[in-house]
Amino acid sequence: MADVVSFRKEEPANPVRVERFEPILRITLNNPPANALSVAVMEALGAALDAAAADEAIRIVILASTGKVFSAGHDLKEMTARRGDPDGGRAFFEKTMRMAADLMLKIAALPQPVVAEIDGLATAAGCQLVASCDLAICTDTSTFCTPGVNIGLFCSTPMVAVTRAAHPKQAMEMLLTGETIDASTAKDFGLVNRIVPQQYLRQVVDKYAAVIASKSPQALRIGKAAMRAQAGLPLPDAYDVAVATMVDNMFADDAKEGIGAFLDKRMPEWGRD
Amino acid sequence: MADVVSFRKEEPANPVRVERFEPILRITLNNPPANALSVAVMEALGAALDAAAADEAIRIVILASTGKVFSAGHDLKEMTARRGDPDGGRAFFEKTMRMAADLMLKIAALPQPVVAEIDGLATAAGCQLVASCDLAICTDTSTFCTPGVNIGLFCSTPMVAVTRAAHPKQAMEMLLTGETIDASTAKDFGLVNRIVPQQYLRQVVDKYAAVIASKSPQALRIGKAAMRAQAGLPLPDAYDVAVATMVDNMFADDAKEGIGAFLDKRMPEWGRD
Amino acid sequence: MADVVSFRKEEPANPVRVERFEPILRITLNNPPANALSVAVMEALGAALDAAAADEAIRIVILASTGKVFSAGHDLKEMTARRGDPDGGRAFFEKTMRMAADLMLKIAALPQPVVAEIDGLATAAGCQLVASCDLAICTDTSTFCTPGVNIGLFCSTPMVAVTRAAHPKQAMEMLLTGETIDASTAKDFGLVNRIVPQQYLRQVVDKYAAVIASKSPQALRIGKAAMRAQAGLPLPDAYDVAVATMVDNMFADDAKEGIGAFLDKRMPEWGRD
Repeated sequence: MADVVSFRKEEPANPVRVERFEPILRITLNNPPANALSVAVMEALGAALDAAAADEAIRIVILASTGKVFSAGHDLKEMTARRGDPDGGRAFFEKTMRMAADLMLKIAALPQPVVAEIDGLATAAGCQLVASCDLAICTDTSTFCTPGVNIGLFCSTPMVAVTRAAHPKQAMEMLLTGETIDASTAKDFGLVNRIVPQQYLRQVVDKYAAVIASKSPQALRIGKAAMRAQAGLPLPDAYDVAVATMVDNMFADDAKEGIGAFLDKRMPEWGRD
Repeated sequence: MADVVSFRKEEPANPVRVERFEPILRITLNNPPANALSVAVMEALGAALDAAAADEAIRIVILASTGKVFSAGHDLKEMTARRGDPDGGRAFFEKTMRMAADLMLKIAALPQPVVAEIDGLATAAGCQLVASCDLAICTDTSTFCTPGVNIGLFCSTPMVAVTRAAHPKQAMEMLLTGETIDASTAKDFGLVNRIVPQQYLRQVVDKYAAVIASKSPQALRIGKAAMRAQAGLPLPDAYDVAVATMVDNMFADDAKEGIGAFLDKRMPEWGRD
Repeated sequence: MADVVSFRKEEPANPVRVERFEPILRITLNNPPANALSVAVMEALGAALDAAAADEAIRIVILASTGKVFSAGHDLKEMTARRGDPDGGRAFFEKTMRMAADLMLKIAALPQPVVAEIDGLATAAGCQLVASCDLAICTDTSTFCTPGVNIGLFCSTPMVAVTRAAHPKQAMEMLLTGETIDASTAKDFGLVNRIVPQQYLRQVVDKYAAVIASKSPQALRIGKAAMRAQAGLPLPDAYDVAVATMVDNMFADDAKEGIGAFLDKRMPEWGRD
């Protein structure tokens, strides 16, 4: 059932595991203990997302990790090693920071919903990854932080995602103190949707994925695109975008089938795209 | 005391009931069981809001409904019937989606505050209506959802309102799963202000309305307009708008009276506009 | 240890107390019972913030108050007295409203984080002050309101800060009803970060300040500037700003030291700027 494809890179063997369970794509950061976002990992992750974007049969993407750390963010060893470059590492730093930002933008732009499955610590760009996913489900022992102030490198890029997920003061507490918040606080802040005991994490995430995968694929794609198109627009402009989207959506096959099924009180049968 | 005016339309008899209790206007969706936002209902609702906007003696508007469903959103039967139009229904769909969006914008633009009084299910554009009101008070058995994904028609227009009322991940959970949330979750998300037992709903809403109606009518109008004018602006621009508003407000009769009364430790007497 | 400097003004003796505890600047509104934001107080507060902005050795600013009211906002007596001016007070009202807005913008633009320490009532522009600080810690008996509707003067400028700290419906409840919320509700709304018993307020705030002051001063400055630069931008634009910030931050001395220390598993030693 699972079609396991791995994007192998030079450094860690198999840093990102990609598994296909029918309409569900499961991407696992597999670079413990830190699951750092090295260039190799980000390339593999980006390639997996690109492949997902191009595959209409994939209806939902799960982003998980192995080990006790969901992701510790950028690979500081890799970055520090480049301080010896002729430009002091500037080109490399620009490349890695840009790659990470592009990864977050790719998640927002992905046609499919992306669910983060967190068991453990999500820190810095790892926390940003959680904040950037459409949904996030975590274990009750998971923790979250943006500790850049502890190493002289403020979490400015994670801030972009965290301040858009939580209230400003909540985001600032994380960013200014660098302290770690527990799962319950993360849920209060809007960083995660649901907290489950560890033994049920996979089961609950799979249930969410199955629920979402059972919905109209066309509607999900239309909705995710509309989410991005209207975000941050003034209210009248946002409605202009959304009204046009709704009208077009009415002519999608799934809307014809779905509304018909609803009125007929039967289960809809979605097209295969 | 109550001056009942009804905007009658061809289809359901009396789909929107409009009652006047001194400075309080009570608009009731009266098209059970679904209280669907058919063209007739939206026209009646829009006409009631237009009349309220033009009547300075109205200080607050309550939006309520009869039956077990606050509102189920668009009238899918009415829409489906138009698929047989020469244009497949496009013109009609554009009209209805535009009408619904204009209704939400009308609530935001109304000079008076609008309080939603919810007892039951608010779904799709019905949930959008709740999200679009200035305040919302619901019974503890009320529920909320944006289930468009179940019928192939993503709730893109409700998304505009819901993503502006709640955090992004909370909004996305509703939109992507289509699942129903309870009153308590809706309060956590910022969709409603207060939850009350059913037998006290009307009493609590009336108390809120009376409290707000007792405030300076000029200040309420100035404030609601300022809310809309500064929303989404960069901080310095928002302050430019708000500072100009405050200075003008200082010259309103009610501010002279109100500040004077405050300093004299007496109750203010507001002008009749 | 404490180097107390006072900005004296004509009216109240010593309306704003400024104390320096090594890298922590403590500014105390000292104009009880109302701690009103008179012109004198706002000038003193603005001067204290300007001095802080120019002093790189200051790493964090605490904004506290004496008495039972954190701040009651604008000085209504002072304003009312100017109704007799030839222009009815317009120039003075413009001056005071502009001063208050500039004060809030100054807090946002300050290179250092600003923590509000609240024990008592924060009302109108006093509540705006709380909402405008980066962090806020209050006693469990503190209360918050924006009661302009009670005096005919809608809290339009406080609205700018409150609607950016809390969800729209939560902000509207405060603004339209003018009612007072308790500390717990304020925390739910995102207006404050933490609630503590009165006897521990100073201790907890000092601990927060010490924690933040122990972080990289360069990172804190870079981060606070980035917060302001990216706020409200569309996601891709916000990432452009943040990526450029991160790359520059990598070349700050503190980042070199901090990342090195982290990789070497030792404590970092921050530069003195």
